[in-house]
Parts: sequence; C-alpha cells; structure tokens
Amino acid sequence: MSQDEFQIIDRYFTRPIEDQDVLLGIGDDAAVLQVNGPVVITTDTLVEEVHFPDTLSGDALGYRALAVNLSDLAAMGAEPRWCTLALTLPSADDIWIEKFAEGFFNLADRYGVSLIGGDLVRGPLTVTVQLVGTGQTGHLMTRSGAQVGDNIYVTGSLGDSAAGLALLGEGKNDASAAHQALKNRFLRPSPRVAEGLALGGLASAAIDISDGLLADLGHLCDSSRCGAVIDVEQLPLSAELLALFRLEAAQTFALSGGDDYELCFTASPAQARAIEQALELLETKVHLIGQLTEEPGVVCRRAGEPFRTTSRGYAHFEHGH
Amino acid sequence: MSQDEFQIIDRYFTRPIEDQDVLLGIGDDAAVLQVNGPVVITTDTLVEEVHFPDTLSGDALGYRALAVNLSDLAAMGAEPRWCTLALTLPSADDIWIEKFAEGFFNLADRYGVSLIGGDLVRGPLTVTVQLVGTGQTGHLMTRSGAQVGDNIYVTGSLGDSAAGLALLGEGKNDASAAHQALKNRFLRPSPRVAEGLALGGLASAAIDISDGLLADLGHLCDSSRCGAVIDVEQLPLSAELLALFRLEAAQTFALSGGDDYELCFTASPAQARAIEQALELLETKVHLIGQLTEEPGVVCRRAGEPFRTTSRGYAHFEHGH
Repeated sequence: MSQDEFQIIDRYFTRPIEDQDVLLGIGDDAAVLQVNGPVVITTDTLVEEVHFPDTLSGDALGYRALAVNLSDLAAMGAEPRWCTLALTLPSADDIWIEKFAEGFFNLADRYGVSLIGGDLVRGPLTVTVQLVGTGQTGHLMTRSGAQVGDNIYVTGSLGDSAAGLALLGEGKNDASAAHQALKNRFLRPSPRVAEGLALGGLASAAIDISDGLLADLGHLCDSSRCGAVIDVEQLPLSAELLALFRLEAAQTFALSGGDDYELCFTASPAQARAIEQALELLETKVHLIGQLTEEPGVVCRRAGEPFRTTSRGYAHFEHGH
Repeated sequence: MSQDEFQIIDRYFTRPIEDQDVLLGIGDDAAVLQVNGPVVITTDTLVEEVHFPDTLSGDALGYRALAVNLSDLAAMGAEPRWCTLALTLPSADDIWIEKFAEGFFNLADRYGVSLIGGDLVRGPLTVTVQLVGTGQTGHLMTRSGAQVGDNIYVTGSLGDSAAGLALLGEGKNDASAAHQALKNRFLRPSPRVAEGLALGGLASAAIDISDGLLADLGHLCDSSRCGAVIDVEQLPLSAELLALFRLEAAQTFALSGGDDYELCFTASPAQARAIEQALELLETKVHLIGQLTEEPGVVCRRAGEPFRTTSRGYAHFEHGH
C-alpha cells in the first residue's frame, strides 16, 4: 500500500470507534473483535456499469454499498455491527472519496455499524463491503424454514426503485415530487433492519428483494422446497409509481424490478396478528400477497386467474443495468 | 443474481463444510458462525494488471487471493477458519473458474479454511477475499507492541518473489531450477500461518512482508513509535536468488521487493532462544537482521555504515506490477 493510500484511509475512513467489542480497528494486519454467540456475515460487490450507472454520485455509491449488505442482514433478522470495505478506485480523487465516505458513514452511523478494516487499491471502480452482525439463536431467519400454507408478505412498496432507475436512465430533468421520490428509492434504498429484527421468531423464512420479487421469492421457495401463488392485485404499489406508470407497467416493475430492498417473508397464518402488531410498532406497512403451495414454482394470479410472467428478475451475467 | 451465477456457485464453490461452528454456509442471505472469543478479520483485493499480470493462471490467482489474506492472519498470530469470496469476472468461463476454484480450495484445505459465502458478479477481473480467524487473548500480535532495543527478525528468505515476478515479466522460457524456484515464490507464496501461531506470546510485534521489507518494517516502526537499523548483510537471500542476480540486486529485491509473505517480527532479546526453538520445531529458518531504535525511520547499514535506499517498496497508486 502506498503513502497515498494510507493518507486516504487516515483522512477519510479512520474514525474513533466507540464499540467496546472492537479490540483492534483499522491500521494493523487485521481487526480484532470480541464476540460471544452467533455471528452473521454477508458480502456484496457493486461494479460500475453493472450494478450502478457511471453517473451515480460518490455519496450515493458509498450509501448503496453499505445499504445492500444491511438489507441482507435484515433478511436474517441479525443486528449489523461491523464492516470492512474493499474499494477499488481508478484514481485518488479527494473530492469523490470524501463524498463516498460521507454517504457511507451517514448510513453506518444510522445503524451503529463500525468500519473496522478494508483495502484500498487502484483499478476499475468496484466496491465490496463485508458486513458482520450478531444474532440470537432461535431469532435468526433463513430462506429455508417456510412451510406449505404459510402466508407470503412483503414490507413497504415494490417496483419504485426499478422505476426510479428507468427514469434516471431517461435523463429527463423532471422535478416533480413523484419523479424525485422514485429516483430516490433507487439512489437511497432503506434497508429493513429494524423490521428484520422484529420478525425474528415470528416469520418462518425471509429474503430481501434485491433481484426482483419473482426471482427472490423463487429462491425462498427453492430453499424451502415449496411453491407460491401470489395475487398481483395485492402487490403494494406506491402513489408515486401509479402517478407515472400505467397499472400493468407498475405491476411489472413490482414483480421483476430489482433493488427494492424490501423484505419478503413467510409466516404461519397463526402469526398474522403478531406480525401486523410488530410492524405497526415500527410504522412499517406490511402486505399479505399470497400463500405457499406444494407445487414448485411461483404462480401469479390476476382476478383469481393464473397468468404467465416473462421475467424472473435481474440476471447479472445476461445484462447489466 | 442470475441462474448462471447460482450454477457456477453450486458447481464450483459449494462444498460440504465439516466445521461444526458453521451454522449456515453458502446459499442464504448471510452465513452464520458460532464464535466465542476474539475474532480476527482481514480483507485483501487483487486487481488484474495492478496486483497480478493478465497472464496469471486461474489456479495461481485462486491460490494467491487466499494466500495474501492468510499471510495477514499469520502476522496476527491468529488461526484462519472461515472466508468469503467476492469474485468479479468478465465472463463465465467454466474452465477458468474450475481452475480458480482448484487453486483456492487447495490452499483452503491445507489451512482448514471453510468458504462460507461470497458474491459472484460480472465486471473487470477482481478478487476480494475476507478471511475470519480466531485468536487467544494475550497471543495475538499487532504492529504496535514493539519496544526500543527489541531484535528484528524475518522468516525464510527475502526478495525471491519480486525476482520471480521480474523473470516472469521477461517472459523467457528458462527451465532451470533456480528460475522455476523464484517464479514459484511469486506464483505460490507460502503464508507463515504456523509460524505466526508459534510466535504469539513471544514476539512483541509482527507484520507480514507484502509491500517490501523497508515499507512494512516502516509501518511496524510507525505503529510502535520507534525506528530501526538493519544490516543488509544479514538479509536472508536464497541460493536461487544469488545464482541469478548480483549481490546488490538481490539485496535490493530483499529490501524493496513485494509479495514475499514472510513475517517480520520483533522480540525482546530475552526471548531470542525461545524464538529459535519455536521456529526450529517448524523447521523454519529465522534471521536476526537488526534492532529497534529510538530515532524514527528505517536505516540500512552495509559493513556497519549507514546508506541511503531509494525505494520504500511497492506503491499501488503510483505504479502497478
């Protein structure tokens, strides 16, 4: 590592850590944590022109790199605690790096996450965050615990982020509130960390919606060896999405659009009231969209009639966005 | 993630994990580990054309990506246990991926490391491994524990890897044993994991030599707020290095060449015998190359006379290799 890199790390990424469980932070060959109990670990990589457009600002990228990992821990019902950051940069641009760090730490502070280490290297713009959290045995959720007959729920609203990305791609400078709101859903996704923690012990299985509802619910069903039927009329669509897109286009965004970072989870019908109450406390809307079935695969119904969908969501090796 | 990616992960990267402390491995939103005590975490990124030539084979890259992280844990005196792998690939080339996985798992198996998660995305060839280990309080080493008057040691021999890289760059097809040995030091570095574990409780500070002895010893001195004097005649040079390079060129490789992945460590003179014995048990050579001083900076001596060096080692933001 060059002196340049040390200076960048010192100036922008090394901050006092108040967490007593961090025995050694940035600046040695490795970090040391004091842990007792289940540790939950996830990692996600974002590559320019594959996962985000080259017009994305530094702070939006710093925010996003952490947000996508927070969303994974949310789906486990784990508490995010510590992270490392591997940042590959084409050049050492101080202004860009400062903005990146600002976006990153804004979100890290909001969720009490300490940056404990990382690597800073030269190369094509790529960010890999690894997030480490803690969990309680019996309260962690997986994709594989769902049972036939369980209800299928999603938090918040679906499709906004994919619609926002489409609007960003058009490049029109529309300052309307609906336009801005959808773009912001793509640029500043809100990971459902508190919701994940609240659902531990209530939900039978959970996954975060990063590749699109059909794709991610499909993964949950595959892991739980079951199928699903969902009613498209029950998909939660925001007023902003419906203001700018026809109903069918909005439903397609909700079914197949990526980057929502809402939670899709399942629960026994006996838990229905407890789930509503738990999420009411957080002022988070939750929507019952279908049920798990024995027949493998995800079937969509409109007015009670099954119909075919053409997309299973976002596929990295087939096309970028 | 696309079906392609799931197939690649299933086929090449998902293997049975025998470690009882892995409660959940690859295939969910995150992995879950059972841990009690200090956890040691490091991460390193390798970028094509920056950290390795584009001629490096898949298996050499898979090996290397894990080796550089193992070396960081070795410098801490920690036991490597689990890792995640974030792999960015320009295309899904089955043959290349199979070789990469082979190199990666060969080394992982040798050190008992389980791959518990990761991310596979499309983009410019980049590998980020995050390695998680366990340590014992009082046996972990840092860069900051050294004292003025401590001896400075290095394991093995220095400069071979940088010389090997230079030979690879020349592209000559020389099958001599010395040529092959040096190239192999670059292509298949041996992290000093057992040595690090043996030195815990004996060494006052340690660092692995990845950027070159002068640079890395400089980091150790900075962290420990002291300086160092080393005698270049004491630098351990291999017979192969001396067979192919003049003494001064060999010493320059040893001082400034990167990628040795030997350990540089310090210890009170009172520990000298215990250190020799500990490393003798491992059949690892250890060399006393100098002492820590009050005066900041690293000074080299030849025949007892200080001399200036021109390089502090490898600097990623200034030039690649």
